[in-house]
Amino acid sequence: MTVEPLRWEDGALLVLDQRALPDEERWIRCGSADEVADCIRTLAVRGAPAIGIAAAYGIVLAGARGEELGEAAQVLRATRPTAVNLGWALDQMLEGSGTGGPELLDLARRLHAQQYEADRRIAALGAERFEPGDRALTHCNAGALATAGIGTACGVLSTAWESGRLAQVWVDETRPLLQGARLTAWELHKAGIPHRVVADSAAGSLLAQGAVDRIVVGADRIAANGDVANKIGTYPLAVLAARHGVPFYVAAPVSTIDPSAPNGAAIPIEERDPAEIVAGAMAFNPAFDVTPAELVSAIFTEAGVLESPYAEAIERVAAG
Amino acid sequence: MTVEPLRWEDGALLVLDQRALPDEERWIRCGSADEVADCIRTLAVRGAPAIGIAAAYGIVLAGARGEELGEAAQVLRATRPTAVNLGWALDQMLEGSGTGGPELLDLARRLHAQQYEADRRIAALGAERFEPGDRALTHCNAGALATAGIGTACGVLSTAWESGRLAQVWVDETRPLLQGARLTAWELHKAGIPHRVVADSAAGSLLAQGAVDRIVVGADRIAANGDVANKIGTYPLAVLAARHGVPFYVAAPVSTIDPSAPNGAAIPIEERDPAEIVAGAMAFNPAFDVTPAELVSAIFTEAGVLESPYAEAIERVAAG
Repeated sequence: MTVEPLRWEDGALLVLDQRALPDEERWIRCGSADEVADCIRTLAVRGAPAIGIAAAYGIVLAGARGEELGEAAQVLRATRPTAVNLGWALDQMLEGSGTGGPELLDLARRLHAQQYEADRRIAALGAERFEPGDRALTHCNAGALATAGIGTACGVLSTAWESGRLAQVWVDETRPLLQGARLTAWELHKAGIPHRVVADSAAGSLLAQGAVDRIVVGADRIAANGDVANKIGTYPLAVLAARHGVPFYVAAPVSTIDPSAPNGAAIPIEERDPAEIVAGAMAFNPAFDVTPAELVSAIFTEAGVLESPYAEAIERVAAG
Repeated sequence: MTVEPLRWEDGALLVLDQRALPDEERWIRCGSADEVADCIRTLAVRGAPAIGIAAAYGIVLAGARGEELGEAAQVLRATRPTAVNLGWALDQMLEGSGTGGPELLDLARRLHAQQYEADRRIAALGAERFEPGDRALTHCNAGALATAGIGTACGVLSTAWESGRLAQVWVDETRPLLQGARLTAWELHKAGIPHRVVADSAAGSLLAQGAVDRIVVGADRIAANGDVANKIGTYPLAVLAARHGVPFYVAAPVSTIDPSAPNGAAIPIEERDPAEIVAGAMAFNPAFDVTPAELVSAIFTEAGVLESPYAEAIERVAAG
């Protein structure tokens, strides 16, 4: 894959500014944890696994500047509340931190490499569920841009495509920030995968017309019972998929699972600036919603495919 | 109500350009049926009943210019395929046309006045279903702008508000053309009704959280069995409403009913320019979807509230 949202170069983290895509490929050079935190907060880098990897490099930068790692981690952790991978990656860095310096960089690079490995395994397991001619639908962007690997949901799609088990992808534009229309369409275009962008609200009629064979999305946090927090609009898709008997898959690394959240109600949902929706009118802008486990056909993780009953499957995976 | 999308003045039809709202109140002066057809085709005026009224005035203009009324009606009829009120209003004008001239204007004015009457009756019947404290959700714009009366769904909301049976309205922004964020929010603001605009995909989590007590939408065409074609995104709302036990109402004049369409599959769905969704990527842009009658709690019409079994109720109403 040629899409890389994060690069470590000359002692700095280069962040591909996802706010400017697809019009412009602009890179932001971060020399400090604070600059990385800004990139996460302002969505220059987004996607649950990718912000975890970015935060890990943020700790490297803090270490190189002789800053207190715990404080840097606190700043990075506070940037966005819903994705649990952020806290997970920071915990990994803090636990693994020895004397600082090169060891921290090795650690961050290892997390980054592990994400590639996890994505590849997720993609391979997920693609097995596809059949030639399948038309899939995805929401938001769970691609390389979102994971700093090969993507979760988009990794499944590209692997299914490469193995001849995918005909076309419907891409929800994903309001308000259009991650589908801007980012997923861009990634699919680069990969040469046939796709069509649709308004989020069009998925219902596509399903009713039998034009969708599978839905696959990423996740920002998965609770112990299998409830899935993901980009706002995921839950309606799952409800529609159930009505039309279409499989609804979630693709996510194990680091997305939060065993400490008993269910979706325990997952904090980020509320973003109403101005993302509309200027000059009152708006309400939750960034994520929760899909109850009962509507999820399977969760593809690098530790295997989880299926109902999720509580048991998740307990098994979380135990390692 | 101070919102009037159509005015007859000095022998011309003035059309409030809804594409420019809410930023600018710009009026387009139509002196011919062709100019009215352009306004309908380009969405300067939109909304099933309103384009019917506009088309009726278009026939007046054709008559005044000594044009062949049948030909003018054909041009107007071809502008948009889904709303049946357009054809209904043109048929009324052609059937009622005598020698042309003042009679045509009287006829168009009568249709326009009838729309006000129908909207008021719909609003009164619909508002009776509301209870104090209700939080309603609506999609697209079924307000005064859409009917050239007091609105259908928005007429219900404003009447419920005036009678103390409405606390707040959630307004779907309604992609791709944002009729909710631009037009419904503007109408509700003018009426002083508390409201919040949300991304279309947020309705699911609002319903899951119990933040919506009723959903009310307009319609572009209602089939003989009660299936409802309306703005894309209506069907997912109806599915979600059913899942959460929230009443899903349709508010529409009898002229929206098409007894010749046995069910939703017989209703032509307009496909609009993909560029409305996204520039520079492949897109698919159906403008409407079909909600099966089984998901509709009630249809408010000026001839009464229709309830399941819809086929019988509609046959009764269509018979007059």
